[in-house]
Amino acid sequence: MTTSYLGMSSMLHTIEVAGILAFASSGFIEARRKRMDVVGVFTVAFITAFGGGTLRDLLLDRRPLFWVENQEYPILIFVMSIVAIPFLKHLRNAVTENAIVLADALGLGLFSVTGASLAQEAQMPMFVCVMMGVITGIFGGVLRDIICNEIPLVFRRSHLYATCAFAGCWAYLILNWLQVNEGVALVFGVGICFVLRMMAVRFDWKLPV
Amino acid sequence: MTTSYLGMSSMLHTIEVAGILAFASSGFIEARRKRMDVVGVFTVAFITAFGGGTLRDLLLDRRPLFWVENQEYPILIFVMSIVAIPFLKHLRNAVTENAIVLADALGLGLFSVTGASLAQEAQMPMFVCVMMGVITGIFGGVLRDIICNEIPLVFRRSHLYATCAFAGCWAYLILNWLQVNEGVALVFGVGICFVLRMMAVRFDWKLPV
Amino acid sequence: MTTSYLGMSSMLHTIEVAGILAFASSGFIEARRKRMDVVGVFTVAFITAFGGGTLRDLLLDRRPLFWVENQEYPILIFVMSIVAIPFLKHLRNAVTENAIVLADALGLGLFSVTGASLAQEAQMPMFVCVMMGVITGIFGGVLRDIICNEIPLVFRRSHLYATCAFAGCWAYLILNWLQVNEGVALVFGVGICFVLRMMAVRFDWKLPV
Repeated sequence: MTTSYLGMSSMLHTIEVAGILAFASSGFIEARRKRMDVVGVFTVAFITAFGGGTLRDLLLDRRPLFWVENQEYPILIFVMSIVAIPFLKHLRNAVTENAIVLADALGLGLFSVTGASLAQEAQMPMFVCVMMGVITGIFGGVLRDIICNEIPLVFRRSHLYATCAFAGCWAYLILNWLQVNEGVALVFGVGICFVLRMMAVRFDWKLPV
Repeated sequence: MTTSYLGMSSMLHTIEVAGILAFASSGFIEARRKRMDVVGVFTVAFITAFGGGTLRDLLLDRRPLFWVENQEYPILIFVMSIVAIPFLKHLRNAVTENAIVLADALGLGLFSVTGASLAQEAQMPMFVCVMMGVITGIFGGVLRDIICNEIPLVFRRSHLYATCAFAGCWAYLILNWLQVNEGVALVFGVGICFVLRMMAVRFDWKLPV
Repeated sequence: MTTSYLGMSSMLHTIEVAGILAFASSGFIEARRKRMDVVGVFTVAFITAFGGGTLRDLLLDRRPLFWVENQEYPILIFVMSIVAIPFLKHLRNAVTENAIVLADALGLGLFSVTGASLAQEAQMPMFVCVMMGVITGIFGGVLRDIICNEIPLVFRRSHLYATCAFAGCWAYLILNWLQVNEGVALVFGVGICFVLRMMAVRFDWKLPV
């Protein structure tokens, strides 16, 4: 994150936390549906939230890892696992399905675009940057579904899930290549991904093939 | 392993081998149940025994890997796969279920605590050390179940499996933080994990949530 | 690839592309069978073709990754995913099953032997080199089956799949140890794997245990 606007930086940080929470929540819900106990719920939530970023860091050979640098994130999910489970039935009513979809779409955009941005910093070729972005955005959810013994949702009824990440990464990288201001490119890339995803969910878009 | 007591070091080495064999055995049994051939059995046994340590080494960026430094361990499992399969039906009677549970609990304790210890050497923050320990202890079994197309056992009917690793790692790290002798902390951490696990199996403990 | 024969080098390059395409094709077919859309098909094809090499590079700590150095390979698979899907039903008739088995066997041989060769360059002990070779050859297919929620094919009805990779790697390493010319050892190792695999498929060989 190389933006120099303090306001934008703290906005991005807030979005990041929202994205992590949204990703973790989808892990909570899936794990409880499979009747896992609190340890299973925590692990699945943790892997859903950090799996994509961890794989990206392994592939790019970046250390320290994302969640090692920000120890407060795994602790947050740990506390949530203990506190939230007794309330999980109620939680699903309180936090509406829509709120999760919304936060998840923001998280997807932010994770994907920052993934592409980190790959670019590491001087990867352009197509590889896009793939790193998509991996960062979607891989947590893929691991969640593999652990829960499902065919990954993102591949089945995608609602353009990976495609949104793909489009957002390209938008960011092209703006970057046109030497547009970094902050603007970031916001634009995240926005493209977010808007596309919300519309795909709203209008039940699917890929023709 | 920074203990300077030769006796303890060779004791730990023996436990380590017992742990690897116990982990590998659970892989053998699961793979045969799924009607895999000898290659499948070896691979599943290998992944069960070394999957956790390998993931830990990837995350901590440690080289050479655990099983590369100790080439005799994969060879041991390879030989066991060839020799043991014809006798596997008999093996399940000869080596009682209890012996496997016991060795597995020792292995879990040792793998977890040494994982936490290696993470601490790499100067990870404390919560991250615990997670590295738990990952080292349980991830082999998780991979075994994913390959065999099951929801990982550790998440389903856990008998506190991951929780024991979690408790053992905390015990070790807190003793270490109190500047207790390294060897004592190691033995204590492994012991906590082992005793908790044996009692959980014996009395059929489960987490309330 | 340290061979100095230009003719052989370009031959190996051609085989490598054929192997990648064959591995990707098996991903295409499996993903379509599971009714995934184009994004799912691309991802599964990509993981099948590059999963083994990527895991090898992570374990050996080699950078840049295989498919980052050769960006044209993922792009090729991306284009194929878009172009090929509408024709996939016809494709299965046009490209006969036999052609895929043949290319796949060549790819298996080449991936395995080069994996073992790279491990040897990194001065791994001999048994570890063989395992790195086998991992490089088979792991893409293993990941494909895990994502598609199947017990990995290679463990079930193997037709000696992993065993062929194992034999090819040993052949290569032993010739290398006997100081045979590198190019000859490579071709011989790939050949052993290829011929063994084709015969196993032809005569429906299975391991006795």
